[in-house]
Amino acid sequence: MTAVAADLPDAAALLTRVTAVLEGFLDDKAGGAGTLRMPLEVTQCLRDLAVGGKRLRPLLCVTGWQAASGRGTPGALVRVAASLEMFHAFCLIHDDIMDDSGSRRGAPAIHRRLALHHGQGRSTSAAERVGTSCAILVGDLALAWSGELLHAAGLDPAQLGAVLPLVDDMRSEVMYGQYLDVTAAGRPTTDVDRALRIARYKTAKYTVERPLHIGAAIAGAPLPVYEALSAYALPVGEAFQLRDDLLGVFGTPQVTGKPATDDLREGKHTVLAALALQRADRNQRRALQSLLGSPSLDEAEAAYLREILTATGARSEVENMIHSLRTQALRALDIASFPPFAIAHLRQLTDSALARTS
Amino acid sequence: MTAVAADLPDAAALLTRVTAVLEGFLDDKAGGAGTLRMPLEVTQCLRDLAVGGKRLRPLLCVTGWQAASGRGTPGALVRVAASLEMFHAFCLIHDDIMDDSGSRRGAPAIHRRLALHHGQGRSTSAAERVGTSCAILVGDLALAWSGELLHAAGLDPAQLGAVLPLVDDMRSEVMYGQYLDVTAAGRPTTDVDRALRIARYKTAKYTVERPLHIGAAIAGAPLPVYEALSAYALPVGEAFQLRDDLLGVFGTPQVTGKPATDDLREGKHTVLAALALQRADRNQRRALQSLLGSPSLDEAEAAYLREILTATGARSEVENMIHSLRTQALRALDIASFPPFAIAHLRQLTDSALARTS
Repeated sequence: MTAVAADLPDAAALLTRVTAVLEGFLDDKAGGAGTLRMPLEVTQCLRDLAVGGKRLRPLLCVTGWQAASGRGTPGALVRVAASLEMFHAFCLIHDDIMDDSGSRRGAPAIHRRLALHHGQGRSTSAAERVGTSCAILVGDLALAWSGELLHAAGLDPAQLGAVLPLVDDMRSEVMYGQYLDVTAAGRPTTDVDRALRIARYKTAKYTVERPLHIGAAIAGAPLPVYEALSAYALPVGEAFQLRDDLLGVFGTPQVTGKPATDDLREGKHTVLAALALQRADRNQRRALQSLLGSPSLDEAEAAYLREILTATGARSEVENMIHSLRTQALRALDIASFPPFAIAHLRQLTDSALARTS
Repeated sequence: MTAVAADLPDAAALLTRVTAVLEGFLDDKAGGAGTLRMPLEVTQCLRDLAVGGKRLRPLLCVTGWQAASGRGTPGALVRVAASLEMFHAFCLIHDDIMDDSGSRRGAPAIHRRLALHHGQGRSTSAAERVGTSCAILVGDLALAWSGELLHAAGLDPAQLGAVLPLVDDMRSEVMYGQYLDVTAAGRPTTDVDRALRIARYKTAKYTVERPLHIGAAIAGAPLPVYEALSAYALPVGEAFQLRDDLLGVFGTPQVTGKPATDDLREGKHTVLAALALQRADRNQRRALQSLLGSPSLDEAEAAYLREILTATGARSEVENMIHSLRTQALRALDIASFPPFAIAHLRQLTDSALARTS
């Protein structure tokens, strides 16, 4: 869980503080829900989900602050960082509904958990529907509460005025990215460019660029700082998504916390799939087209798909792309005029994010 | 559509301004989506949905401003009012997914429309899933964009600081209310209190109290103004929901824009259903329990349920409750120290909201 964070100085302390903010916030919400006779499973679900995160976005938010010459780690900054983690919980919950993922971070996905919770006296399909509806709402609450955490973070009006438009952009970008992802899923094509656009919006901008920008905005950064951060963030973020695509297919479920068949069964329109379709011979193409996105995909078929993704060279080509994007990102750091320790953090983050196994 | 609004002085002008804000905002978003090669159906869905609204919340927001002695109708106020309408679009889209409503405001519900839009080359069930996923995301975007409209409304820092916590509360309240509604649906009981709690959170606070409070907050209202607004808003809002429950069962689909079987088929835990279960004889109870929430409910069964809801006296009891809540709300206005024209607006709103047919 702390693979990404462990290499960074003071990262552990930051993680502890972010967790404390989230737990304190959810304790308050649980207290309020109790008083109003509202269901307590909402805050419990969010607490369980939010505890298990890598905290990549909070770390990047603080690093963006440092890159813009912010000093120390003020409480308002930590609370904004925590709001990004709450926003991420929203993304995970709604994504898992859309992908119908059974598990997340080694536990049942929220819609599955709530289907069980409200299953008594209901048919299986009715329980599934209630579980999905409840999870949509828990996600909605996480989105609303990420705003609340941000609004109450203690930013001064100038900081809030700089941060809000960035948060608004971040929200639209990741939602549009997910929209592209969802509408392309089930019928991957040879269109590598479309797959890269999904990676850029859903991941590069959302996971890397905007958290850095938001931290920089709190420090009152001028425009060139944002641009230098983007020059680093977009390639490293795209590489991060390419690594994620590989882990989704070739990763170890015990380590990733996600079944290694989900992405294949969904027929995600990834760069990996697009390249394989480009390079496949007739038999391989037929197999890719019939099996990628097949709802009934079994383990043997998944293994066969993995074989094709490797044999076509798509897998190693994606590794090459990751390497080249990593080089591009590190070069952007070479010419960035951030304080040296911020540069060092970003270098370390690059390596742990792109070499990760979960 | 403008039944509620038509009686109010200057209401038509306000509606025009709110619509112009929403259209201008969505035009900008559509332009941005075009540039980024993002799908244009998102903004088109929101535009079509947002055009058809009654604009009740914007009207109440402006009335709250007037009650707190705000003068004129400044642009920032109109933009905040428009943000409430965008938030309402979010609620409708996600609610329609949860209720699996086929239509809204006389047009196909967004998840149905997007299932059709993305149906080509997909099985029916795959198209439905994509439609639902896309609609979840269009709703998420509407929620995010309601925030963006608010952030960019042009409030000064003191106004923004007063409004944001109210908006945060409003979001949590309606989401929790919907959560109660969803988990109670399909198995209505005799628990009238629970049904009233749903009405209070999902409707009274969300539709009436918070829009009034938000308008008052922009005018810098002191605490007693909020309390006086609540004393009016909560009874009128509960009555509004009770009227909605009656319309959902006994209304004319051509006028409400919603099939009159949806609520019965969902087995909504309404005061109407709870009272009928309390008062039913053995045969009636058996029919209510087997038919309320039956996914296959047909027109004849729905007609039979309507007969029981009437024969048990539940329908007229709900009418009595509406009458009594209306009296309570109007008495609260008698002792409120709002400017006379604000009182007059609230009186007119009460009558048109509670006597409405759609």
